[in-house]
Amino acid sequence: MYENMIVINRQSAESLQMQIRRQLAIGIVNRQFPLDKPLPSTRFLASDLKVSVTTVELAYSALKADGFVKSRQRSGYYVNPDVLADPGHRAVAVGQSSDTARPPRVDYARLFRDRSFDRERVVKPADSLVRYRYPFVCGLLDPSLFPLAHWRECVRDAVSAVGIANCATDFSETDDQMLIEQLIHCVLAKRGVVARPDEVLVTVGGQQALYIAIELLLTSGETIGVEDPGYPDVVNMARIKGINVQRLPVDEEGLILSKRLSQCKCLYVTPSHQFPTTVTMPLVRKSRLLGLTRRHGQFVIEDDYESEVSFNKTPPRALKSLDRWGNVIYVGSLSKSLLQGLRLGYLVADPEFIREARALRHYMLRHPPVNNQRSVALFLQRGYFDRFVAQLTRIYSRRCDVIHESLERQFPGAVVKPEYGGTIIWLKLPGEVDAGILQALVEPDGVFFETGGFTFSDEQSNRNHIRLGYAAIDEALIPEGIDRIARAVPEARNAEPSPEERAPTREKLGPPSGGLTGSPGGASAATMS
Amino acid sequence: MYENMIVINRQSAESLQMQIRRQLAIGIVNRQFPLDKPLPSTRFLASDLKVSVTTVELAYSALKADGFVKSRQRSGYYVNPDVLADPGHRAVAVGQSSDTARPPRVDYARLFRDRSFDRERVVKPADSLVRYRYPFVCGLLDPSLFPLAHWRECVRDAVSAVGIANCATDFSETDDQMLIEQLIHCVLAKRGVVARPDEVLVTVGGQQALYIAIELLLTSGETIGVEDPGYPDVVNMARIKGINVQRLPVDEEGLILSKRLSQCKCLYVTPSHQFPTTVTMPLVRKSRLLGLTRRHGQFVIEDDYESEVSFNKTPPRALKSLDRWGNVIYVGSLSKSLLQGLRLGYLVADPEFIREARALRHYMLRHPPVNNQRSVALFLQRGYFDRFVAQLTRIYSRRCDVIHESLERQFPGAVVKPEYGGTIIWLKLPGEVDAGILQALVEPDGVFFETGGFTFSDEQSNRNHIRLGYAAIDEALIPEGIDRIARAVPEARNAEPSPEERAPTREKLGPPSGGLTGSPGGASAATMS
Repeated sequence: MYENMIVINRQSAESLQMQIRRQLAIGIVNRQFPLDKPLPSTRFLASDLKVSVTTVELAYSALKADGFVKSRQRSGYYVNPDVLADPGHRAVAVGQSSDTARPPRVDYARLFRDRSFDRERVVKPADSLVRYRYPFVCGLLDPSLFPLAHWRECVRDAVSAVGIANCATDFSETDDQMLIEQLIHCVLAKRGVVARPDEVLVTVGGQQALYIAIELLLTSGETIGVEDPGYPDVVNMARIKGINVQRLPVDEEGLILSKRLSQCKCLYVTPSHQFPTTVTMPLVRKSRLLGLTRRHGQFVIEDDYESEVSFNKTPPRALKSLDRWGNVIYVGSLSKSLLQGLRLGYLVADPEFIREARALRHYMLRHPPVNNQRSVALFLQRGYFDRFVAQLTRIYSRRCDVIHESLERQFPGAVVKPEYGGTIIWLKLPGEVDAGILQALVEPDGVFFETGGFTFSDEQSNRNHIRLGYAAIDEALIPEGIDRIARAVPEARNAEPSPEERAPTREKLGPPSGGLTGSPGGASAATMS
Repeated sequence: MYENMIVINRQSAESLQMQIRRQLAIGIVNRQFPLDKPLPSTRFLASDLKVSVTTVELAYSALKADGFVKSRQRSGYYVNPDVLADPGHRAVAVGQSSDTARPPRVDYARLFRDRSFDRERVVKPADSLVRYRYPFVCGLLDPSLFPLAHWRECVRDAVSAVGIANCATDFSETDDQMLIEQLIHCVLAKRGVVARPDEVLVTVGGQQALYIAIELLLTSGETIGVEDPGYPDVVNMARIKGINVQRLPVDEEGLILSKRLSQCKCLYVTPSHQFPTTVTMPLVRKSRLLGLTRRHGQFVIEDDYESEVSFNKTPPRALKSLDRWGNVIYVGSLSKSLLQGLRLGYLVADPEFIREARALRHYMLRHPPVNNQRSVALFLQRGYFDRFVAQLTRIYSRRCDVIHESLERQFPGAVVKPEYGGTIIWLKLPGEVDAGILQALVEPDGVFFETGGFTFSDEQSNRNHIRLGYAAIDEALIPEGIDRIARAVPEARNAEPSPEERAPTREKLGPPSGGLTGSPGGASAATMS
């Protein structure tokens, strides 16, 4: 009898009770039941629909709770007349039906038009390791190098440790103390940075450390200085927040100490291993920079990215190691050499600054996942991290020599040899070569590299820069990869760039072509954080 | 000869080379070496200090690179006279010495005085499970309930899977697809929420989802509506950003639909399980709320915290399930019932909104850790999550009955029985009892509960509310714990609150007394995210 009104679908993910409840509600608001007669009894409906009495009873109870029906002593359920006068009930019932026309929706695209976070940003190319024979991709680790057994052991041991620790501490107020200790002794000490536990905050990657530092130090209308060329994500982040960006030129000793610096409330710098040129600021310039900023009452955010991969036994000291006034906010990361997706970074600064940073972190996300904090702490404590980094450094150092030699042969004098270490080499191509065009030319040849123009304030005049990562490419394949790039240069020089290649938009950069267009799709997300 | 000038400490963490380099630099800037004579030869110094020739040679090379010395063909190293004229070099050398007086430091406390994030905030009490026999603490899971074996299995399997997946995808642009799929089918479907993959964003806990939603929808000077009583962290977050807060009263059916709503650009609501009262908004009021917000062109942030712990077979549908206009931003979390420190949440909204949210997430932290995304995806996919939640729900439901019965016996009519489920019970104490005083009275008796006054806009008039968590207390101990609270009420009623107890400050709330003072230290960080 009710089979046409109430259709039971036993394959549906929706429970039988919900199906009955929903369809009865629709019937009620559509006046398919008389007001003066009881609704079909529980027992009758159950037998009719071949479901249990309990199922129907639960459906009726829910309808009663929602105001669709009333129950009368000994005579069962009736339609609640109020329901027919109330558009709310109708909306509830019909909203549950799938065959109603969709009403117009909020126009979010218009809402965000003037204040959008969705700008061009640094994204990693998709599946580049699989797609290319010569993947000079930046910021990706060769997965075969990762010490999986050691990592597994630490993860396993962290599960139980954290399970217990977790219930005893508020990780929003204090970080994993073993991790803080290991960072201070195993990581920061190598950079010459002496820190107490209350001067260190664990973050979700170096990126969160940067976000917090910028949010705390700068507000709309103030000015941040960023190296030119420099890290584009910081430029974007500042612009979104209404912060002015003063670009500051770089020479072979890093940031040039010019008068422009004095206009900035805060400087964002990469002194030990400049992004993207890889040059190292000599100790003396570091010291002068500190003196200058102190005289001007400025803050300095030092991004010491990739600091663990240093080719020298005694790497250049971090700027922070010379900071006696307390105006340097130090940003570091373990995501780079450790399992990349882990997202563990840290902030080192004055205890008062860290206190504020912890408060902001609380509102942003409370705290970084505790299981990863403990796993990494164990990985550091057991010496696996040092061993892993030492192994990586040996391999990267050799690859760096090979790529440098190959490039010198093909582009004499055009390449910067990384003094510090790291995983990327910076190259200025001769004359008028557009790196985006070159990239498209070598791609069918199995070669992938990243363009560098987008790191400059004047992208148009600097489209002849490229970034070559050597962390993920087999050493033996490097020379041939470089040769293929060199062979394509003459053709690239003669090519007329299309308007599209001149001004690529983010919309075009979806996978799998993500890494193939010009800036900024070709850069690496992991590089700097 | 040089032993007094250069002290070698073989126990130091500083390398021998660095020790020599540092002390030579100090000697140079302090004019302890003549300008016209060569510095001690490598060979001589090595023998004098009993170190290898290479060590000294490396120290000299570094000093040369830093500009402290010059080398002359065949006659060794000389002091670089420029160094003595340059304060930068002096600062470098002396900055490395530990016995220099500390210069004045940046006054960060003053810097943040007017715009501080470090306000009173909801923090978890420290080690409450260990310290109290009757821990009615909120938001902490009984660690013995956690299915450690299943979780270990998923973590183990995720390590290898992610190791590979990690190199193929940019997790800033796309989340773990298995996790998204599992959230859609296993978690959101239960709330009646139908979502496509491009309508879901994974976040670091529900807290990040809230932060993103507020950042995207509101700017300084605009107004957010927050339930009264309601979640204090949202009030704080809004105030820090210069957003006005309109408090909106609550009755036994949740948020009251008053004219005040129309003044808000956005509402923050907890309709299925109101925070902190635990009342459930009936479907009809939910529908009216949606209709109202649509007419006013308002946005709604729905915080569906603790939604998985539902005592009813068919829990009330989420507000989002009725949203056909797209103005509801849905915030959920898995951190609550899963290992609490994992911090995995999600945002469900219109694809255009999610696109913006992903961009903001990129600048905040790129992406949530990929290993945890995959571990949780496996935990969901293998049915362990459902089984775990079913087990928890049975236990919590029993505990809820026991605590409700005990409270009804002691405080008839004063307690709200959670309709929905969850892990917390809300109680209004009779008359003039100050919950902070009561808390201090029962603490020596081994009882811990949380005060509720801080969830009201008018905290002073509502200091007689308390929150009792039953997730971490043994069922058998509940009646005695409640009896101890009840026995202390007469004394608390007669006590005159001290000014300190009237207005507690965050400064007082450090562990281990974190959970013992009044609001807001006694609340739970995990509860709402």
